[in-house]
Amino acid sequence: MKKKVRLAVAGFGERGNCVLDDVLIPMQQDEVEIVAVCDIRVERAQAAADKVEKSGAPRPFVTADYREILKMDTVEAVYIATDWEVHTEIAIAAMKAGKYAGMEVGGTYSVAECYDLVKAYEETGTECMFLENCCYGQRELRALNMVRKGVLGKIVHCSGAYGHDLRKSFLEAHGKDRAYRVKNYMTRNCENYPTHELGPIAKLLDINNGNKFLTLSSFSSSAKGLKEYVTEEGGPEHPLYGVDFTQGDIVTTVLTCSGGQTVILTLDTTLPRYYCRGFTVRGTRGGCFEENASIFLDKTYDDKVEGNWKTQWGNETNYPEYEHPLWKDGVADDMHGGIDHLVFAAFLEAVRTNSHPPIDVYDAATYMCVTALSEQSIAMGGAPVAFPDFTNGKFVCRTDIVENEYTLDRVGADRGLHIV
Amino acid sequence: MKKKVRLAVAGFGERGNCVLDDVLIPMQQDEVEIVAVCDIRVERAQAAADKVEKSGAPRPFVTADYREILKMDTVEAVYIATDWEVHTEIAIAAMKAGKYAGMEVGGTYSVAECYDLVKAYEETGTECMFLENCCYGQRELRALNMVRKGVLGKIVHCSGAYGHDLRKSFLEAHGKDRAYRVKNYMTRNCENYPTHELGPIAKLLDINNGNKFLTLSSFSSSAKGLKEYVTEEGGPEHPLYGVDFTQGDIVTTVLTCSGGQTVILTLDTTLPRYYCRGFTVRGTRGGCFEENASIFLDKTYDDKVEGNWKTQWGNETNYPEYEHPLWKDGVADDMHGGIDHLVFAAFLEAVRTNSHPPIDVYDAATYMCVTALSEQSIAMGGAPVAFPDFTNGKFVCRTDIVENEYTLDRVGADRGLHIV
Repeated sequence: MKKKVRLAVAGFGERGNCVLDDVLIPMQQDEVEIVAVCDIRVERAQAAADKVEKSGAPRPFVTADYREILKMDTVEAVYIATDWEVHTEIAIAAMKAGKYAGMEVGGTYSVAECYDLVKAYEETGTECMFLENCCYGQRELRALNMVRKGVLGKIVHCSGAYGHDLRKSFLEAHGKDRAYRVKNYMTRNCENYPTHELGPIAKLLDINNGNKFLTLSSFSSSAKGLKEYVTEEGGPEHPLYGVDFTQGDIVTTVLTCSGGQTVILTLDTTLPRYYCRGFTVRGTRGGCFEENASIFLDKTYDDKVEGNWKTQWGNETNYPEYEHPLWKDGVADDMHGGIDHLVFAAFLEAVRTNSHPPIDVYDAATYMCVTALSEQSIAMGGAPVAFPDFTNGKFVCRTDIVENEYTLDRVGADRGLHIV
Repeated sequence: MKKKVRLAVAGFGERGNCVLDDVLIPMQQDEVEIVAVCDIRVERAQAAADKVEKSGAPRPFVTADYREILKMDTVEAVYIATDWEVHTEIAIAAMKAGKYAGMEVGGTYSVAECYDLVKAYEETGTECMFLENCCYGQRELRALNMVRKGVLGKIVHCSGAYGHDLRKSFLEAHGKDRAYRVKNYMTRNCENYPTHELGPIAKLLDINNGNKFLTLSSFSSSAKGLKEYVTEEGGPEHPLYGVDFTQGDIVTTVLTCSGGQTVILTLDTTLPRYYCRGFTVRGTRGGCFEENASIFLDKTYDDKVEGNWKTQWGNETNYPEYEHPLWKDGVADDMHGGIDHLVFAAFLEAVRTNSHPPIDVYDAATYMCVTALSEQSIAMGGAPVAFPDFTNGKFVCRTDIVENEYTLDRVGADRGLHIV
């Protein structure tokens, strides 16, 4: 039986509670012991402790101050699910206290903050994993697997989106938990949530491991969707009524890579649409297209015979041979389709073995800083801005990547300048 | 019975011959008389004349020199289907000779060439129509109709693509008709074929009629697809073997509009893929998504109930109430799904009534110049370049737009700064 990871959890908003209910409490059986819970609204931490206790496990220590949990000898690792604003602050404090950090996703407010995160890791030697669950998505891991096997040929272009209509949740949540998120829509204009789509793309493009981003350019549409929605659905009594939102409805971001690839990201959260991460991978031998859930392999299709591409729609599940090993035997169908289970399994495995995580501080800094860079580029009319290399050259040949079942990077002989 | 338009046709490559066979010869019955045919390879003009004669019509005059047809009193209008290089030259010569020009699509080599086209029109008063058939596509006209009716709300973002795997045709055609096209892939790197997707988007965004493009930024992936294909499928004996193509596999172009919209164009011609123009229109009340042939209207869908967006796939034909009048009664299913029939019907109607065409020189210059601008932006690492206003301010309030069944612009009281 595995040694259980002694975990503290900070932040019990919507995300923290989902993970507690769907991932951490079930994983108490074999993998984790929740020894402390924390929230600046202490009643939320109390409620979390109640849930743990009710599940049959010992009641965790409860506090409103995250610094308290970092002092506890019994805490090995900290899962940070607070609001975006303090992810980095808590992660840095955790590393400085010698606690393995697991940080939820979000964008960043400055490039400096990203460097601080990297510096904390390099100075302390304590690890931090960025818990980007979409890196473990079935579709994303299938594509990663296909790329690694060479099925798609050389990869030259990818795109992804955060296509998620948040208008209703903003309207309902204002004054409640998600209020901090909508405040970003009142004060900024940027790619404010890049990591769900960028993480999986960065991994398959070997970013920070043989490849890197060189430039970023961002462009924003006008901001019409949320104001119209608030006006029509909220009415004059709603606190958001009359607000002129600064955040454009659709923000398009273009990244160029030292390996010659282009990556397009789309933030798309305030217009009517279906949920979609628009994950697209294009290579010289084939491609994957989330928009119609298809895999397109060279020489398997003839425009003139088939008449149209609809014959390909939904065929992505017809290729069991390309399924990633992590998805081959099925995954517990918990929240977010199993991806949360996988990203926490990866995190807990890394903590248990005290090893370098599959999504590390360099990745965290790279993915999160898109937000700050895009804000600058938009403000300058789409001028390209330089993309920092947070590895400071280590991307040329990484030596710290650990190989296990959760590894997302190329390893061993396969590592290096392979795809350029 | 209508007066038949006395037409000369210049250029009998693949496109000219298709239009002759599928559109012009059938239209001889009621609409057109082909009085002259021209091709620098005169045997191709002879073959075209043979076809016309065989159809029962009088044999047209045959020449290798387009200047000859411009001298003919019997010629009212000229249809230009030569290679890209001389579209503008012939159109300008036609206008100067007082012949109504109908110009096939393609990109441009310089912004100056676009200004020359506009100047020829303004100086001669002779009209020129840009024959962008995709402006009359069923999907595109349906979206235009929905936009005009307000069904999609305020439009804030559009995208389109030329997603067409041309590798095989380049390999087979080298040394033959399409050779000039592949030569562009050996000497340039740009959005070389923007008009099919841009034309319909520009019309629904009221470009040159209340709205205009402000900036263009383009980004190119590396060029891997065509070389790999030539190497594997052509082999060492093929004339293209060993060529290092300059044209990136995927070129992404971002346009910003004075009305606040963003437009994304994708050139995607040298990697394996299905044919698709990726036409997407996004408004505050709904959107159209070609990638899965769907129409998405606000409040008709609930992520949580439906489970996933696949329930929407292919529903675009479920809205007969939004069908554009030109498609309502069905369209002759000739080449390219009826769109060639419609664009020629629009052209012949404009010539017959000697009126301003629905896609004019300002539109032609605007759509074509994307090619030259994108080449510059890519060369400057994606720096935004200024987009010319070829109307020189007339876009603020157009007075020359003609209303008939083929009109694509807003007209009458609906004209002006309506969507900003």
